[in-house]
Amino acid sequence: MTFSVLVEVQLRPGISDPQGQTIERALPNLGYEGVSEVRVGKSMRFAVDAADEAAARAQVDELCQKVLTNPVIEDAIITVEPT
Amino acid sequence: MTFSVLVEVQLRPGISDPQGQTIERALPNLGYEGVSEVRVGKSMRFAVDAADEAAARAQVDELCQKVLTNPVIEDAIITVEPT
Repeated sequence: MTFSVLVEVQLRPGISDPQGQTIERALPNLGYEGVSEVRVGKSMRFAVDAADEAAARAQVDELCQKVLTNPVIEDAIITVEPT
Repeated sequence: MTFSVLVEVQLRPGISDPQGQTIERALPNLGYEGVSEVRVGKSMRFAVDAADEAAARAQVDELCQKVLTNPVIEDAIITVEPT
């Protein structure tokens, strides 16, 4: 079976995010008030072949821990859905 | 009221994604088979102050169109939730 996967990678809480801070500082000058706590991360979508949803999730978990994220400074939010 | 916002920015379908292609090519050599259609985008989380959810969504829509994405080549998936 094929599953469609969404991985959202964000810096862990407490890790400084200069990209988000830059956006937050720039927005009021561009006319957008009231935006705060900006954090910028990555989002990855892909398809994975696996026997069932649990196997797909296990494979994606390992992939995230070992390849797609740096677990020292990043957290991954994983969504697995049948296609 | 404050709303928590998640914006997922992905390249539009048909726009070449070299970063995703590179990941897809590398994975089999790293021992991960069965992963395909890799697309890499950005994810942004922030808080926005607005009178109600519709106003928050309208502000974030405009922000995405004008500042956070390049609508020529990128699509945004916007999620707005009360905090």
